[in-house]
Amino acid sequence: MTGAGATKSESGLGVVHYGLGSIGLEVARLVAERSELRSVGAVDVRPELVGKHLGELIAAPGGRPNVVVSEARAALAAPGADVVAHCTGSSLERVVPQLVECVEAGLSVVSTCEELSYPRDRAPEVTARLDRAARAAGVAVLGTGVNPGFAMDYLPVVLSAAMRRVDRVDVHRVQDAGLRRIPLQQKVGAGITVEEFAERVRAGTIGHVGLPESARMIAAAFGWNLTDVRETLEPHVADRPTPSGLGEIAPGRVTGIHQIVSAVAGDREVVALTLDMAVGLDAPRDEIRLFGDPDLSTVIPGGLHGDVATAAVVVNALAITAGAPPGLRVMTELPPPRPRP
Amino acid sequence: MTGAGATKSESGLGVVHYGLGSIGLEVARLVAERSELRSVGAVDVRPELVGKHLGELIAAPGGRPNVVVSEARAALAAPGADVVAHCTGSSLERVVPQLVECVEAGLSVVSTCEELSYPRDRAPEVTARLDRAARAAGVAVLGTGVNPGFAMDYLPVVLSAAMRRVDRVDVHRVQDAGLRRIPLQQKVGAGITVEEFAERVRAGTIGHVGLPESARMIAAAFGWNLTDVRETLEPHVADRPTPSGLGEIAPGRVTGIHQIVSAVAGDREVVALTLDMAVGLDAPRDEIRLFGDPDLSTVIPGGLHGDVATAAVVVNALAITAGAPPGLRVMTELPPPRPRP
Repeated sequence: MTGAGATKSESGLGVVHYGLGSIGLEVARLVAERSELRSVGAVDVRPELVGKHLGELIAAPGGRPNVVVSEARAALAAPGADVVAHCTGSSLERVVPQLVECVEAGLSVVSTCEELSYPRDRAPEVTARLDRAARAAGVAVLGTGVNPGFAMDYLPVVLSAAMRRVDRVDVHRVQDAGLRRIPLQQKVGAGITVEEFAERVRAGTIGHVGLPESARMIAAAFGWNLTDVRETLEPHVADRPTPSGLGEIAPGRVTGIHQIVSAVAGDREVVALTLDMAVGLDAPRDEIRLFGDPDLSTVIPGGLHGDVATAAVVVNALAITAGAPPGLRVMTELPPPRPRP
Repeated sequence: MTGAGATKSESGLGVVHYGLGSIGLEVARLVAERSELRSVGAVDVRPELVGKHLGELIAAPGGRPNVVVSEARAALAAPGADVVAHCTGSSLERVVPQLVECVEAGLSVVSTCEELSYPRDRAPEVTARLDRAARAAGVAVLGTGVNPGFAMDYLPVVLSAAMRRVDRVDVHRVQDAGLRRIPLQQKVGAGITVEEFAERVRAGTIGHVGLPESARMIAAAFGWNLTDVRETLEPHVADRPTPSGLGEIAPGRVTGIHQIVSAVAGDREVVALTLDMAVGLDAPRDEIRLFGDPDLSTVIPGGLHGDVATAAVVVNALAITAGAPPGLRVMTELPPPRPRP
């Protein structure tokens, strides 16, 4: 392994960092450790970051990489730029202008935008526009991360390789939010009342983004025509005083989310995805069950750590995406991303 | 799902079956169930099979597909042929003439030849020759199956996508040979003496083929330069009378194999693959442990069934391979194969 950026050669795939929130900075830290990747540009919408050194923001030894945060146009035109690590938001509609800007600068993109992971069914026009722009520029665009992008879609599809026939995919992801960063605990509603939770559900301001995308990605991989995709979201509620990063949660208050997506083809449920993300959950794990001929199941005890794994998937997918056929790509069309030195 | 071949349309990827042993026939049965694939030719070296109907050999309803077993030249020239499902042998040296013949007929190939799964290091000249021939013909060649090809190489590489860094891969595959076909029980030495086992080890006539290939495939995926790959093979020995498909195995006699490959980079073991395949083994499973940042482990309880899974991986990889860039391909370079209707 190469350690700090200071010892790296100046070769390798040139990465522009677009978005320097917690995931974006974790991505930059990881890129600094890889000899086959190098940071060549950085962008953030927060004006107070412009002019700062990326190496200082990620506290890398020696302050490398010696890249200054700039506005997008300059960063995307950085010499040696090949691919963008895009980590700004979950809403496809809101990030599309940024993605088009990257593509028109001639750069491939790997984005954490959850809705980009499988946008064809839900946003056909935006998808077609992005696909055309990418093809015209000869670059590839991929939305990925751990979920959507890996745990609940790519991995089940990979496992199906050993099956004669798949009839149904059932994934259960259990994450103890108490082990995650505080914004994540807030995101799942830890500590709020059940009434407040219901209000946020109505307002669409709570819940994980991307389960329907995972279901649609799976269905497309197996050639299933979905007739319905239903999503439900309910609270986990504390049955005892529960410590959390936001203070103790009183019994009767919310500890997190219990979110389910059910995808149906005709009269048959073909995909069932369950995400439990709450403070204090027992037995965190990723559990995949495939039904067909033969059945196949597997479990990852402890589960994949959301933030760590998302940054890893993004960084590991940079070279794969830069080498992929031009256009808007989907994870299940690509070879497995993997960490290289 | 479409059922019998009789109801299938005449479109779909055209498959030539090369080798009609137990795996080859299982492959043909599976192809008959898929609407996106159709059998267009069949070859076997056994003269008594020439002239037989493939549909009868696989006992398909209605006797379809209506394909007659022929010699290779005729089968490979069958109208509509796109890709060969090649299931004849484990030794790359022995099957290379067949593979070249397929490629020169303009067909992509998916082969169960274990040594073809990652041949670059062990047979560089043959590999280069095959790669050149495939590129010249504009077709792709892939060696795959469950092991090598999936359980001990592709799947660990896929899992690494969620890791920042991988230092070491440890896979343990435990198969109860008593649940497998009798030739497999014979292959692992069930019922023979410990002395006979040692003789077969010396003669190279016992043991599973492909563990070193899996180790090399993993190392290549992670950019590790292996300095040594060591393989050891020992017997499992019955400690009580053990029922098997070959009759009861007496205490002190062999029940199967305990095979280990250890791959080293410099002073560090980076890959450890252990295959236990014996009659009466408890807790059959596929267990993958990746060490690095973070560690990641998973288990498939019961394990992937060798013969079933190999035929499935081959059939599921046909479309992926036919659409892959020309040349000799490796599983870890390809998108995940998956069963489609």
